[in-house]
Amino acid sequence: MGLNVGVVGATGAVGRNMLSILNERNVNIKSLRCFASERTAGHLLEWKGKEITVELLTEEVMKESFDYLLFSAGGSVSEKYAAIAAEAGNTVIDNSSTWRMKEGIPLVVPEVNPHVLKNYKGIIANPNCSTIQMVVALAPLQQKYGIKRIVVSTYQAVSGSGHKAIVELGNQLNDPDSIPKVYPKRIAGNCLPHIDVFNENGYTKEELKMVYETQKILEDDTIEVNATTVRVPVFYSHSESVTVTFHRKPDLNEARELLIQAPGVVVMDDPANLEYPTPLMAAGKDDTFVGRLRSDLFDPFTLSMWVVSDNLRKGAATNAVQILEKIEEQKL
Amino acid sequence: MGLNVGVVGATGAVGRNMLSILNERNVNIKSLRCFASERTAGHLLEWKGKEITVELLTEEVMKESFDYLLFSAGGSVSEKYAAIAAEAGNTVIDNSSTWRMKEGIPLVVPEVNPHVLKNYKGIIANPNCSTIQMVVALAPLQQKYGIKRIVVSTYQAVSGSGHKAIVELGNQLNDPDSIPKVYPKRIAGNCLPHIDVFNENGYTKEELKMVYETQKILEDDTIEVNATTVRVPVFYSHSESVTVTFHRKPDLNEARELLIQAPGVVVMDDPANLEYPTPLMAAGKDDTFVGRLRSDLFDPFTLSMWVVSDNLRKGAATNAVQILEKIEEQKL
Repeated sequence: MGLNVGVVGATGAVGRNMLSILNERNVNIKSLRCFASERTAGHLLEWKGKEITVELLTEEVMKESFDYLLFSAGGSVSEKYAAIAAEAGNTVIDNSSTWRMKEGIPLVVPEVNPHVLKNYKGIIANPNCSTIQMVVALAPLQQKYGIKRIVVSTYQAVSGSGHKAIVELGNQLNDPDSIPKVYPKRIAGNCLPHIDVFNENGYTKEELKMVYETQKILEDDTIEVNATTVRVPVFYSHSESVTVTFHRKPDLNEARELLIQAPGVVVMDDPANLEYPTPLMAAGKDDTFVGRLRSDLFDPFTLSMWVVSDNLRKGAATNAVQILEKIEEQKL
Repeated sequence: MGLNVGVVGATGAVGRNMLSILNERNVNIKSLRCFASERTAGHLLEWKGKEITVELLTEEVMKESFDYLLFSAGGSVSEKYAAIAAEAGNTVIDNSSTWRMKEGIPLVVPEVNPHVLKNYKGIIANPNCSTIQMVVALAPLQQKYGIKRIVVSTYQAVSGSGHKAIVELGNQLNDPDSIPKVYPKRIAGNCLPHIDVFNENGYTKEELKMVYETQKILEDDTIEVNATTVRVPVFYSHSESVTVTFHRKPDLNEARELLIQAPGVVVMDDPANLEYPTPLMAAGKDDTFVGRLRSDLFDPFTLSMWVVSDNLRKGAATNAVQILEKIEEQKL
């Protein structure tokens, strides 16, 4: 007994993390197949001490029967092949942005809105990395105090742009003359207030994802989100400076206690002893780390915090695997 | 004819920039003397092709007559020696935080509040680097719309911690095992939400500087400031994500025009053509660069922007020299 699982985009930065996490979390797998485009089909991937040959992604293969297909292969691939797979009756957990805002498609962070998975079949969307960690930290406070408004500035790792960006930052750190290819400007020793493409209203798509995905996951489209998303010369883990204004006046100690009790959250908040989250300490971990929790100096309805999580793990692969686990748990 | 100028702390990162900038801006100097502690007294500094021997800082020498003493030697040195120099009738422009919030001490950004320099003799405080660039960008909007509230997250360069921090980041980039000394944790590939010491209310001193210095410079202690200050692995120039709410509804195009006209501000805001400020492009320049100017998606009273400036120059040395220039200009 066990699950038939396929990973589409298995050779990418998130895909490789999906394989590790399926192993680490001991997901009960009978058969694991890996799919990719022509560029990497035929490559060998190691999993649980065995070699898996990466298969070419085709329409035909997506029509076969899987318990779960985990997609991390980019928007256009997902638009076509996830649709075919779901049409054939498969459950797809998709990491691209393609399906997230479509009506009827669940957008899921298992700690936050698992109920939308109940009795659902088809495509499930995995939210954007920067949104996931923010809503994990905000959901327990939303339930208690009701969120009116969020102002967030991000400090995002290059791994969010895939393996080639990790290589690019490494090259630039070793060679001041190395030419940027993944990013429009040098990222080493720099900050770029530019993630994904610009919209006409002056916001990037990444910033708008944080607005609309947050509203959808927290199931409240009156929540105001003002986001500024920035790439920084960090390899792994996104950090976020989050200032949130509530409808009901929060109590700082109660809010801290709610976060300590919250699933998926680790509170690291003892600045006197240098305890606060950083991207280096969060890398390779599955939790969302929260620190620097404090009351606004002027507005008693507002709290600020610093939220850090590994963007490839909780921000992508771990969250996708947790969706699978949550569906299995709900079946019991 | 010309000015007798002394630079105290001349061998530090800001002190060296003061020497360069006095030269670049062609300040009319008759005599330039450099002072430092025992650690570097006796060293030679080059200025305008001549060598200057760094003199030991003593009480006696501070009682001599100078037109201007530019201090960048840390808080405790400034507390003692700037007081002696001012008592002796000298005009001191001090870069430490010691005098900034003292009543009767002007805290000056020449583009913003030059009028407080008129007929003043004694100690003048140079604001904190992260405050200077923010108020340069906000002052023209404050005049037109009145600022109610600012939420700011910073991306601060290591040069703000002096020359030894520049060396530390360089060492860490070359050696993954290099032990942090200047910072409590590794800064290479990391972000530290910790600049200066923590206060009991959960804010750092750096964050509180941005609150109270902003109110003092903009001469409005009703302005609410919520600041999160973060060190990033960048060598030069601080970046700031600033979201500002006004009393009167701003017009985006008018606000952009006000910034284009504002002294010391360069608007770089054409994201479609990848034009936005970055710390790498701002390094070595004297202006404050503003981009990503946009309206809040929900609150018509709120604008967001991205503000970048060289923290050693406009954030410290340039601003100090501009204070000197402004006093000279007002004498004419």
